[in-house]
Amino acid sequence: MLKLFATKGTISVAVALVLEEVGAEYELCLIDFATEDQRSQAYLEINSKGRVPALVTEGGILTETAAILEYIAPHMLPKDAFACAKHREISYYLAATMHINHAHILRGYRWADLETSFEDMRAKVPQTMAESCAYVENVIVGPYIFGAEFTLADAHLFAITQWLAGDGVKIQNYPKLAQLQRSIAARPSAATLAEKGLL
Amino acid sequence: MLKLFATKGTISVAVALVLEEVGAEYELCLIDFATEDQRSQAYLEINSKGRVPALVTEGGILTETAAILEYIAPHMLPKDAFACAKHREISYYLAATMHINHAHILRGYRWADLETSFEDMRAKVPQTMAESCAYVENVIVGPYIFGAEFTLADAHLFAITQWLAGDGVKIQNYPKLAQLQRSIAARPSAATLAEKGLL
Repeated sequence: MLKLFATKGTISVAVALVLEEVGAEYELCLIDFATEDQRSQAYLEINSKGRVPALVTEGGILTETAAILEYIAPHMLPKDAFACAKHREISYYLAATMHINHAHILRGYRWADLETSFEDMRAKVPQTMAESCAYVENVIVGPYIFGAEFTLADAHLFAITQWLAGDGVKIQNYPKLAQLQRSIAARPSAATLAEKGLL
Repeated sequence: MLKLFATKGTISVAVALVLEEVGAEYELCLIDFATEDQRSQAYLEINSKGRVPALVTEGGILTETAAILEYIAPHMLPKDAFACAKHREISYYLAATMHINHAHILRGYRWADLETSFEDMRAKVPQTMAESCAYVENVIVGPYIFGAEFTLADAHLFAITQWLAGDGVKIQNYPKLAQLQRSIAARPSAATLAEKGLL
């Protein structure tokens, strides 16, 4: 059986959401960032990067949110080759730009050493995340990114929307993004994750 | 015909390399960062993110390196589903961790505003890029990431190795990574890119 290591409020919510969507049987292992579980020796043996998510499968362990998503639900991608490429374009933007913009609010130590730098980075997050929200707002067809079809990138983006209030961005300023968040929050999969303590 | 917007010394080299590998007909449009071509109005209409690469196709414009790579050469992925997921895991690591670590040497302004922060970020790049090199060194089977087969992630990683000397990292300290760089530099596709002024 699949085993997912995940943490409330993190990007790993996207993976749990899609596992629920596809009705996968999996064991959910909650990793507590408050006690730095993700840096424990036991967890580092699962994911040496010390991050969530990690998915233990019969074939081995997978990390990196969007890579896991494509593995567990390849049918939740647009069918057309070009649309599928646009889907991956968005996934890479979410992983390498929007998520990274957010990471500078709490994880500045990954890229700098001085407290003054961390403060400077934190102060810029409302601006960079607003820019990312404007970018995705422009991409979303509505209610989901590609229209009526709920795809992997929607789950990925939904996980990121959890951070916006803390990042100083009002999601209401981005009506299509706010609608996407509401639409996903209303899905049975999201309700199940709430019951399991992940949302 | 495909049209690739690319810049010497950037991640876009990966896309040009794979276009050469597959023998694609394409027009190469060199974008000069020295004159900030990437921020010109004409280019922003092609890629509003103001970055390279961008690939103009019959179906529309694609951005994000690894998304473009999967579009132009889906056969250059491992065939087995789990191996393919591991390939994407590496691609996401390259895009969202290793590339981002490097970006802090010259592009600190994306995430901070103060010169002192930029200096602090620059000073940490040799450490973060050494950590990333150690990570990929551990992943590479040799001579390529997955062994004998040259995959998309190899082209992606090759483009990143261009930056290591400038990032204060000695590639010789990572024998498999150094071998991978040499192996790709020796391919006819790399020679063609050198002739075209991209390598």
